[in-house]
Amino acid sequence: MLALTLIILGGALSIAYGLWAINDVMKRDAGTLRMQEIAGAIAEGAQAYLKRQYFTIGIVGVILFAAIVWLLGIWVAIGFAIGAILSGAAGFIGMNVSVRANVRTAQAASTSLAKGLDVAFKSGAVTGMLVAGLALLGVVVYYAILTRGLGNDPGSRIVIDSLVALGFGASLISIFARLGGGIFTKGADVGGDLVGKVEAGIPEDDPRNPATIADNVGDNVGDCAGMAADLFETYAVTFVATMVLAAIFFAGQSVMETMLIYPLAIGAACIVTSIAGTFFVKLGANSSIMGALYKGFIATGVLSIGAIAIVTLVLFGGFGAEFTAVVPTLGGGENVTVFTALDLFLAAVLGLVVTGLIVWITEYYTGVGFRPVRSISQSSVTGHGTNVIQGLAISLESTALPTIVICFGIIGAYLLAGLFGIAIAVTAMLALAGMVVALDAFGPVTDNAGGIAEMAGLPKEVRRSTDALDAVGNTTKAVTKGYAIGSAGLGALVLFAAYTSDLNYFILEANREGSTQYQYFAGVTPDFSLANPYVVVGLLFGGLIPFLFGGIAMTAVGRAAGAVVEEVRRQFKEKPGIMAGTDRPDYGRAVDMLTKAAIREMVVPSLLPVLAPIVTYFVIYAVAGKSQAFSAVGAMLLGVIVTGLFVAISMTSGGGAWDNAKKSFEDGFVDKDGVKHMKGSEAHKASVTGDTVGDPYKDTAGPAVNPAIKITNIIALLLLAILAHN
Amino acid sequence: MLALTLIILGGALSIAYGLWAINDVMKRDAGTLRMQEIAGAIAEGAQAYLKRQYFTIGIVGVILFAAIVWLLGIWVAIGFAIGAILSGAAGFIGMNVSVRANVRTAQAASTSLAKGLDVAFKSGAVTGMLVAGLALLGVVVYYAILTRGLGNDPGSRIVIDSLVALGFGASLISIFARLGGGIFTKGADVGGDLVGKVEAGIPEDDPRNPATIADNVGDNVGDCAGMAADLFETYAVTFVATMVLAAIFFAGQSVMETMLIYPLAIGAACIVTSIAGTFFVKLGANSSIMGALYKGFIATGVLSIGAIAIVTLVLFGGFGAEFTAVVPTLGGGENVTVFTALDLFLAAVLGLVVTGLIVWITEYYTGVGFRPVRSISQSSVTGHGTNVIQGLAISLESTALPTIVICFGIIGAYLLAGLFGIAIAVTAMLALAGMVVALDAFGPVTDNAGGIAEMAGLPKEVRRSTDALDAVGNTTKAVTKGYAIGSAGLGALVLFAAYTSDLNYFILEANREGSTQYQYFAGVTPDFSLANPYVVVGLLFGGLIPFLFGGIAMTAVGRAAGAVVEEVRRQFKEKPGIMAGTDRPDYGRAVDMLTKAAIREMVVPSLLPVLAPIVTYFVIYAVAGKSQAFSAVGAMLLGVIVTGLFVAISMTSGGGAWDNAKKSFEDGFVDKDGVKHMKGSEAHKASVTGDTVGDPYKDTAGPAVNPAIKITNIIALLLLAILAHN
Repeated sequence: MLALTLIILGGALSIAYGLWAINDVMKRDAGTLRMQEIAGAIAEGAQAYLKRQYFTIGIVGVILFAAIVWLLGIWVAIGFAIGAILSGAAGFIGMNVSVRANVRTAQAASTSLAKGLDVAFKSGAVTGMLVAGLALLGVVVYYAILTRGLGNDPGSRIVIDSLVALGFGASLISIFARLGGGIFTKGADVGGDLVGKVEAGIPEDDPRNPATIADNVGDNVGDCAGMAADLFETYAVTFVATMVLAAIFFAGQSVMETMLIYPLAIGAACIVTSIAGTFFVKLGANSSIMGALYKGFIATGVLSIGAIAIVTLVLFGGFGAEFTAVVPTLGGGENVTVFTALDLFLAAVLGLVVTGLIVWITEYYTGVGFRPVRSISQSSVTGHGTNVIQGLAISLESTALPTIVICFGIIGAYLLAGLFGIAIAVTAMLALAGMVVALDAFGPVTDNAGGIAEMAGLPKEVRRSTDALDAVGNTTKAVTKGYAIGSAGLGALVLFAAYTSDLNYFILEANREGSTQYQYFAGVTPDFSLANPYVVVGLLFGGLIPFLFGGIAMTAVGRAAGAVVEEVRRQFKEKPGIMAGTDRPDYGRAVDMLTKAAIREMVVPSLLPVLAPIVTYFVIYAVAGKSQAFSAVGAMLLGVIVTGLFVAISMTSGGGAWDNAKKSFEDGFVDKDGVKHMKGSEAHKASVTGDTVGDPYKDTAGPAVNPAIKITNIIALLLLAILAHN
Repeated sequence: MLALTLIILGGALSIAYGLWAINDVMKRDAGTLRMQEIAGAIAEGAQAYLKRQYFTIGIVGVILFAAIVWLLGIWVAIGFAIGAILSGAAGFIGMNVSVRANVRTAQAASTSLAKGLDVAFKSGAVTGMLVAGLALLGVVVYYAILTRGLGNDPGSRIVIDSLVALGFGASLISIFARLGGGIFTKGADVGGDLVGKVEAGIPEDDPRNPATIADNVGDNVGDCAGMAADLFETYAVTFVATMVLAAIFFAGQSVMETMLIYPLAIGAACIVTSIAGTFFVKLGANSSIMGALYKGFIATGVLSIGAIAIVTLVLFGGFGAEFTAVVPTLGGGENVTVFTALDLFLAAVLGLVVTGLIVWITEYYTGVGFRPVRSISQSSVTGHGTNVIQGLAISLESTALPTIVICFGIIGAYLLAGLFGIAIAVTAMLALAGMVVALDAFGPVTDNAGGIAEMAGLPKEVRRSTDALDAVGNTTKAVTKGYAIGSAGLGALVLFAAYTSDLNYFILEANREGSTQYQYFAGVTPDFSLANPYVVVGLLFGGLIPFLFGGIAMTAVGRAAGAVVEEVRRQFKEKPGIMAGTDRPDYGRAVDMLTKAAIREMVVPSLLPVLAPIVTYFVIYAVAGKSQAFSAVGAMLLGVIVTGLFVAISMTSGGGAWDNAKKSFEDGFVDKDGVKHMKGSEAHKASVTGDTVGDPYKDTAGPAVNPAIKITNIIALLLLAILAHN
């Protein structure tokens, strides 16, 4: 009980930090009336969008809640509600801080860069800590209620099912928020750029562009609320899956409850180190913003190693403690893995190392000054076509190193402590989510601050400060996405292990002599061998989801952007005074139109990963029976990870590289022949085309693949629970 | 022996047809001196390129030949040489006909469209029939020599290894030809378009563009020789893999040799039906070129059903004959599948149906007049960015239906006759290769004919005829690529089955009491279950190959195109008379430069799929031992298929759709608001950007993924043979 109390305290600490940071941010000067007016319009648009999005999700959520009550009982349904509500709350609060911090960042930047960084980062940290804290609290408090409060056995089905449902609640918010937010933000961005920068020849964030406010709204609903929901989900789902594995692998052993608590304790410890890390973010003498952020990130990482060591020592009474994980196999036998507490600690450290490497690789592929981005800049010199071709080439290539790192992570953790080692490595990776989201949520605030500075006509120096912050925000956004995808991929592997272990458990129980439980699974003999054609079919069906889903997301952005272009053209035509600066554009119309478009476009594709495992199960069941249906669904879960990982990494890294290739022209890009190409040159125009293409790649389709991967997996787990229950 | 003789006669018939068709084409009028001069330059460039390419491959080939002699003996090495030489010969002869037919097509088109179609199609049919005929002859003749001539048992290792090596020889040519040819053709095309159409504002194929001849050379070396090598490989490899499966599944049964011959007989029968089909290609009263080609294709398909029925009846003595395939399982047990001759026939028909559906789906995604292409045309109205975004969306989406069709094909064939049913379905699919390659090789001839007509300044009506032929050529090229990829994916599944069956065989033999054979495999217990982390790692490593390979290919095209742009800019600057028409551009320099670039760029990436399984094997061996190394390599083979299928389909369909979206502006595209956008409009310019991006997608990276998939699989088979041999 002491451990649980401490973990809850760790979670509560993040809320306390959040309240303190909100208070600190809100105290700052909100700037001139004009600035407040602009920020007000952004806040209003963002709130209107989020209200509508949550309302739509709410309808789906209520229907699902009722279905879960009916199928799995009220406690499981409450788990679902907790996941959905807390995830929604993290996004909602974070975004509301974000839309107030933007104008304060712009104002602070007008006194000093350090102050601007302080406000922007602190507001990002609010979202970050709330994501990690609320996700941890949701899991641990509901776990405590179910076990200590209601007296359920920690490894009982009701506890496992309720926690899985909690993950599903988070997934639901995540898929809608990522997709809806992504379509909104890039519809506004692409549409606004096409008609503003390219057609009308006015700069980004120019107040004459009727899509400007919508673009700034989009940053908040997409990059802030969307990313928060995504990582909340991965966090909750990974912790839950690790607990499910612990319950199965250590069933009947006295160490089982400690093993269930271990991932939660790692999570709590890393919240403390993440909060500590935020205080290391200070602009140094060299004024490197990225350096300041990395200081915080590295401090968190190093402190986390120590914290996890302490947690391991305290929980297990020393590094030498030996454990035996009993992994039931499909034939009815068992695989036994023996490892020590030290092995678990090292697996956790491996998770942290994988995080560091992925961050580093993503920065290499998306950062200005390295080969990939330089090659795109260089290819812009020969035209639009070569720019896009080289960007696509980099996007494909960028998948290689992260995949190799993930593979070595899998092998290393497995050698240390078997499947449970992999789960602990992913848990440690996710435990840094608070800090990572803080780095990401910093992005939309600085982006907005730049927009407000431009629109409010603040002096050039202010814009220069906000631009410097914004450029770093672009890199941190790309880096965070790499982390989100890598962790989602690894997290999904743990989910797949949970699926096979769960299935195994049901089959063994059903086949036990005289058993009346889980009779649906009696005689089921799944065959996950690659030599089974239904496994191949499952891999292909699963592999299809990220491609189809990505395609639909891109189409939605294209359509939304096209609508924005037409709306802006219409406003320019109807009010010729806009371009002259004598007439005010109608910002609200663009926001309103995008809100409707994003909500409309998000519903159907979101259903794809939700329905896919269910359809696959029943189709293969009809053709080849239950056993093959379970085999195909299992293979599908891996199929969606295998292609999803590549699709998501290629899109987010490629998009980030295009973005920064464009930025490289802003200070003049010197090509291989020594010619300098400035902003406005033909090469720069070519780079703008690539950036436009990269936008929905990196901010809509790519990131939305994450929740699609996880939701497919969690639906499969729920499907098992429902089939077992009835 | 009668059956073998008839099969050899079937193969010989294709050669006879080829000789007749060559003679018929060469008799035609080669046009004016100016036309012949242009055609001569194209032919010279193409031959120079191919000579250099074969020389480079020759060096690699000789080294590999020596290595195979050393590792597996002379007979296996001879198999390798046969595969390589025949594949090279098919490409070489086909291309030489192609570069002579182009000018004759242009000349014939100046009398009538029907005559132009006749010459172009006949020359394409030469390549098509040579591909199918030489591949079949290579396999069947070498099989006859090894068994009847040298007295080896049909199921003995030397026969199997030699046939696998024959497939490897074909693979070697294929990967180099696809990649080298692809880089050449799209380097010329993209570079020429960027500097000609976009910068200088001169039409495609304008004689003032110094890259024009190179562009026409590229059509021949890429689309003709490259595609020929690709399908030669799939054909040979699929037939070999099916024979390997037959040797294992029917080992010790008297029906074994008939089962070995069955795929060959299907191949021979379909060569006859393909030749018959060519005579159905006649322009009807409605002057629909596509209709004429489809008539030939459908005739071949329908006739093939009948021919396969006859082959089945004759070989097995009736549809009712029952067979038992004994598939050894890893544990040492066996899976028994019982099926009839009718089931095998139905599996073959299923293969033909899958072919038809894939052709139909590809046409839907790439043809003018359907939703996908229309959506790209419509998105061009709002700019370059939205055009590329929508094209990428379609490219992602286009993977869904073919994958579903392939999955249903797998399930259907498996339900009919187990793994051997899948192999027979793929065999039937590939048996149509002669006809399909004929449709494809038609493309570069008409493309060249258009170019020659433009450069020689033939009257507008001629250009109109060649343009009509060329437009159809674009569609058939896309359709053929869909077929090539679908069949490569399915073929690779058969190869994977061959890998697991082979591995099984070695393990069983090694573990047999008192056995001294194959001791390398003694005690090996591979585990292909998805629950095995090394399987997951293998899937991810395999999945990585198409992405990395695609990325490298795109980079190579971008680099080659950039070099062309610079060369052309240089020529325009140094000889200002070129644009005025008073000075002649130096066509040879562009051809020469591209030849060197393509050869240089093709070598390293080609090694990636060759080395990947070997590296994976030894790395995992070092970390986790032999059993897991074999498991990881097996999973890798499926990983490369799973992502490769999606990457290849998305690239080829997406590229085809972009191409035709551009074409839709040539007759004026009416957008959703009823506005007509003509050639030269802003929307048309946006569509040109998409087309440029799509070029290396559909003609370099996408098609090159095919051989990458197959070569990874065949290397794994060879690796087993080598480990077993030593």
